[in-house]
Order: sequence, then structure tokens, then C-alpha cells
Amino acid sequence: MFCEPLDELIKSLSQLPGIGPKSAQRLAFYLLKEPNKPKGFSLADTLEKSLSSIQLCEKCRLYSDKALCRICQNSKRYSHQLCIVETPQDVFAIENTNSYRGRYFVLHGRLSPLDGIGPNDLGIDLLKKALSNPELNEVILATNATVEGQATAHYLSSLLRPGLACSQIAQGIPLGGELEYLDGGTLSLALQCRTHVTTTQPELETTT
Amino acid sequence: MFCEPLDELIKSLSQLPGIGPKSAQRLAFYLLKEPNKPKGFSLADTLEKSLSSIQLCEKCRLYSDKALCRICQNSKRYSHQLCIVETPQDVFAIENTNSYRGRYFVLHGRLSPLDGIGPNDLGIDLLKKALSNPELNEVILATNATVEGQATAHYLSSLLRPGLACSQIAQGIPLGGELEYLDGGTLSLALQCRTHVTTTQPELETTT
Repeated sequence: MFCEPLDELIKSLSQLPGIGPKSAQRLAFYLLKEPNKPKGFSLADTLEKSLSSIQLCEKCRLYSDKALCRICQNSKRYSHQLCIVETPQDVFAIENTNSYRGRYFVLHGRLSPLDGIGPNDLGIDLLKKALSNPELNEVILATNATVEGQATAHYLSSLLRPGLACSQIAQGIPLGGELEYLDGGTLSLALQCRTHVTTTQPELETTT
Repeated sequence: MFCEPLDELIKSLSQLPGIGPKSAQRLAFYLLKEPNKPKGFSLADTLEKSLSSIQLCEKCRLYSDKALCRICQNSKRYSHQLCIVETPQDVFAIENTNSYRGRYFVLHGRLSPLDGIGPNDLGIDLLKKALSNPELNEVILATNATVEGQATAHYLSSLLRPGLACSQIAQGIPLGGELEYLDGGTLSLALQCRTHVTTTQPELETTT
């Protein structure tokens, strides 16, 4: 294009997810705006600083700028529940529902032998430590409903000490889902995993 | 969210054009991937290096890593034509058409008194120097077809030495445009600026 550093900048930006060559160009020109490029340098600075200070929580592997993350530091969170998820984004999604008050453990991936990802890449040693906590009495497996996610859940369940309750988040039709438009796999799973409904017989008026 | 540096990173990314809070989150998690965050640090590095080395060409104010940009260095480009544009992106757009072989001058903006942008912000001193080049015999005003763009073109035309040919890129219906769907302003302008067509009378066969 105009010069090599600009080409490199555009190339680097276009490698970000969801950003194509055209958007990368637009971003590069935005960052170069004004003689001193304040926008560009401030982004570079924030990137450098943030990336240096963000680390993994020593206990649950969530992102944190301290040794322990906000959730592990919070004494109001229940220590008897541990929810195991694949990514920090999953923690974010669950936290947004406001329906879970326990602790987390983040695998940062899933078992995937084809990609060479084994138990050691998922921080299993740290997980074993978390599982040995005597306060713990329930483990919730919240890996994705993909083949690898389910295989990971299966592997994780083999790590638990006997007597520890273990559950997996429910699979079935999503809220607002219409059977007509649902894929066959989900529908057949929803049928298989049907839950019992207690019927209450309406009290009939008796005529005297 | 999880910690302050991550919040700052997401905030910083979401200020980029076309990137909302959700995309910024996705980008941040992408940059944080893997223990040593190679993707994030390499982007920060490229940003820092590229922004430091990109400067404005001393002659035409296009982006360059040298004192003179690629176009100004190129002796094959015609020195008798100078095309004045608002942004480097405009140069890119014109270059992509492969229909112009002259030189450029980039204003990096347009006259906009409301935003406090006057002639001094557009590098007019440098433009005057370019205009005083004796080889030059045509100036093409290629500012945008907006009110400010047209006002800028009007101002620029007042800077030219007498006798210097000055043209403005044509306004009218775009290629493939259908009159039915065209806005009234463009259509009335296209009518006003209609160009003369030389008719060639078909030679009639004469019956003898």
C-alpha cells in the first residue's frame, strides 16, 4: 500500500477475530489520525500495561490482576459448589444470569487429542487441589455441549472422590424454543432426558 | 467484570470504530489467550513500532516511513498533475482504480469552521509550495461531495496561480445507477451538469 509499517499494522489488525482486511484498514487509519497519533499510542500503551498485569488466579485460573480473583476473594460466595467451565467467557455468561453463587474453575480449553491438548494443558493439578477442599460437596460440570466438551466432562467426572455430588448442566430445548424449528439431535436428547411432572388432580365439585 | 486491567482493555478496544462492547470483549479474550499472551504482545509491539515509524510525506502528506512517500519517490508518475484529496484513504481508492498517474496532496481533513478546522490544519503552506512547482499544469480537486468538501474545494481554487488548469471530479449518476432510485439532489445536479453528445447521423441508403 503506502509503506511497509502501515502494511504490517493492517496485517496485524486483520488477524484479530471478526476483523477483515477492510475493517483492519479502517482501524489503522483511525489509529494514525492526528499528528501525534494519540489514539494509536494510547491503545498500544493500554495493551502493554493490561496484558502485563493480567494473570491467572492461583486458585481457579480466572483472569485477575492479583494472586486471587474477585470471586475467590469474595467470602460471600459458597465454597461448597464448584462449577467447572471451559473459558473465562463462560464464567462471564453464568455470572450474568445471577443464578449461581458458588466458585468456579476455568480449564482454558477442553480435551482435544487431535490438537494435542491433554489434561496437563487444562490445569488438572490445580483442579485436583480445588477438588480436595473438604468444604466442597457439589461439582457442576458446565463444559460445552460439543463432542470435546462432553468428553472433557466425562474425564473430569472420573477425577472426583467417591461421595462427591456431581452434576452436569441440563441439555434440552432452549427457553422460547419451538419444537418445529429445533434440530433433531437436541429434540431427541430432550425426549431422552425428559423430567418427571407431578400431576395435581383438580378437585371436582361433588353434587349433593 | 473480572479485574480492572481487563475492564480497561475492553474499554480501550471498544473505542475503536465499528467495535462495540461485545466485540471488544471477544477481542480482549482473544488477545489474552495462552499463558504468555503472544497474540496480544505481538499486536502491542506492532502498534508501537508501526506508529513510531509512520510519518507524513514531506511533499504530499501521505503516510510514509521515509521522508518522501512511494508516490513522490516514483519518477514515473506525472509531475504535471496534482490531485488534492481529503484523506489517505481517498488516495488508496483512486490508486485502486488504476486511472490516475499524477501526484497527490493529502489535506488530512476539510475546512470546517464549526469544528475549528481552518486552512492551517490542512497543511496549506506545504500545498502552496507544491502548487508553485513550475512543472505543474493541472490541479484536480477531489474533495468529497459534501458541503464542507465543496467549500474546501472552493477555497483551494482561490489559491491557484492564474493560468493553472483546475478541475473537479465529476458529479452525477454513479455507474450502474438507476434514475428511479437516485436521490433528487444527485439527479438534479446530473441534469444541470449534462454533457454534450456529438450525434452521428446514420447514413441513409439512397434509392436510385
